[in-house]
Amino acid sequence: MKSNDYHTIKELQDIFIEHLNRQNFLSNPKELYEPIVYTMNIGGKRIRPVLLLMTCEIFGGDYRKALDSAVGLEVFHNFTLVHDDIMDNASIRRGQETVFKKWNANIGILSGDAMFAIAFDYMMRVDDKIIRKAIQLFDKTAIEVCEGQQLDLNFETSKHVSIADYFDMIRLKTGVLIAAALKMGAIIAEADDRQTEIIYDFGIHIGLTFQLIDDYLDLFSHDMKFGKARGGDILANKKTYLYIKGYELADAKEKAQLDALFANKEIAPRDKIEQVSAIWQSLGVPEAACEDIKQYHAKAMQLLDKLDVPKERISELRYYANELLERTY
Amino acid sequence: MKSNDYHTIKELQDIFIEHLNRQNFLSNPKELYEPIVYTMNIGGKRIRPVLLLMTCEIFGGDYRKALDSAVGLEVFHNFTLVHDDIMDNASIRRGQETVFKKWNANIGILSGDAMFAIAFDYMMRVDDKIIRKAIQLFDKTAIEVCEGQQLDLNFETSKHVSIADYFDMIRLKTGVLIAAALKMGAIIAEADDRQTEIIYDFGIHIGLTFQLIDDYLDLFSHDMKFGKARGGDILANKKTYLYIKGYELADAKEKAQLDALFANKEIAPRDKIEQVSAIWQSLGVPEAACEDIKQYHAKAMQLLDKLDVPKERISELRYYANELLERTY
Repeated sequence: MKSNDYHTIKELQDIFIEHLNRQNFLSNPKELYEPIVYTMNIGGKRIRPVLLLMTCEIFGGDYRKALDSAVGLEVFHNFTLVHDDIMDNASIRRGQETVFKKWNANIGILSGDAMFAIAFDYMMRVDDKIIRKAIQLFDKTAIEVCEGQQLDLNFETSKHVSIADYFDMIRLKTGVLIAAALKMGAIIAEADDRQTEIIYDFGIHIGLTFQLIDDYLDLFSHDMKFGKARGGDILANKKTYLYIKGYELADAKEKAQLDALFANKEIAPRDKIEQVSAIWQSLGVPEAACEDIKQYHAKAMQLLDKLDVPKERISELRYYANELLERTY
Repeated sequence: MKSNDYHTIKELQDIFIEHLNRQNFLSNPKELYEPIVYTMNIGGKRIRPVLLLMTCEIFGGDYRKALDSAVGLEVFHNFTLVHDDIMDNASIRRGQETVFKKWNANIGILSGDAMFAIAFDYMMRVDDKIIRKAIQLFDKTAIEVCEGQQLDLNFETSKHVSIADYFDMIRLKTGVLIAAALKMGAIIAEADDRQTEIIYDFGIHIGLTFQLIDDYLDLFSHDMKFGKARGGDILANKKTYLYIKGYELADAKEKAQLDALFANKEIAPRDKIEQVSAIWQSLGVPEAACEDIKQYHAKAMQLLDKLDVPKERISELRYYANELLERTY
């Protein structure tokens, strides 16, 4: 690689995986560390570390200085999944048993706590002149992710959730960590504060777009490749964008129909999905979702245009973001 | 206060409480933060923050630079209690309902996670030149406390626990946080590395002594002022120093008697305590405990003598350590 060259997505993914595989998460007592090794080996798309390495290069930094931070962010992300799975009583994650199911809740709590501390250890491995900035960003993000998870838990028991509440929740639960990954790369590359804020803001918008698409695809995906049953969110009465928007657009009669469907414990799953889906379609919910997805996506892309770096450096990030967004959408 | 003066224990306690009371832990969503406020208000002896402030002054530092680190350590300690109470299914802590009991396990997990992140936020509030040292010490300690808690959980299901295993567990679960409090004060005062290691080692020995006394007092305390029922550890078959030492000193016949008593679910609590206690006393378990307590305590005090600071500066720490150790012992 020439000094002013940068890597493709595929190269960065490989570089990251290779670096991750060099880490040894196993230590004593093994009851604490085996679930950590298990979790880190399950895989996933490693989106956050790749985004971190990518922005580091976009701002002219050396990706090698960002590798440990990328590991730290991935360990943190996986820690949140381990604890979320306990809270959501989830048995399966990425096609594998969750830690809490494979071992037990205590092991899940404690291994998760250790992962949070291990993530910090990796986040500290940056130059002295940026250590405070890096750790502050990471810690603030960690607190916000907790807030987002709490809002999500609150949604389960609240009758009325507004679209504004929804965006607030997904910004904290999903957006800020994507944004922090991008910003961390910029900090390590010692980008100026204005550039760093733009890339953070881009991350928030891309994060929101991801989540909107995820909600949309639960129902309107035409294949099974995401490993989710079509309509699973409807069966779980989950307060997704579609659910909330449906109520927002419904009149009194349609609200009553939706209420009845979501309260009906006797109805066959297929019927529940079809009937809810029919009402949402009559209300224009999928169109509203597509409209919001387009708007957030467009805003994200406009933010990229504001970056003060050679245009060709951004093309790989733009491509990666769009690839992640497109999937089958 | 003159510049080369230092504070009494009582003054440092008051200074810390006043500083703690100035912190606002409440934010949104309130479901996440109210349990944190509740936990931080329950009280406790605030031993770790006082030790931190005290060593800062012993090494000639300004206690005001150590106040936020003291808060951070206390938040961290309380975070571990919140998560431990879930794992131990404990309803009462310091005479109040535990977070997990007052709210639920999910709230306990998530508020605990947020407390860990908040603790980091406070630990970062030190001068640039020591931030890496401070955060590294804190994070390493956090990982070790998780390891200690895991060893403690392992004890519940292991048939054979040796005295060496026991000391390893209490060093990690109790010792390292006391030691880190003392070392953090030394770091903030910019003490040299050798002094810093001596005070850390003192902390480990004092921490072990605390725990040994705690185990001893479960059975041999003659009053109720610790809020624990006499013999509670025996009823819970808890693998304390006394339990482990008892098996170590017992012959085959006595081992069988102890096995029978600990396996007996029908026996009246009072009888179980009396019979176990009688066997332990015949084996010399209390004397062995007292001997170990004396040795660890003596070692701790010798370490204090090695510190290269004016003797009168250490007297308050020596006094505080002894006061904590004595209680009714």
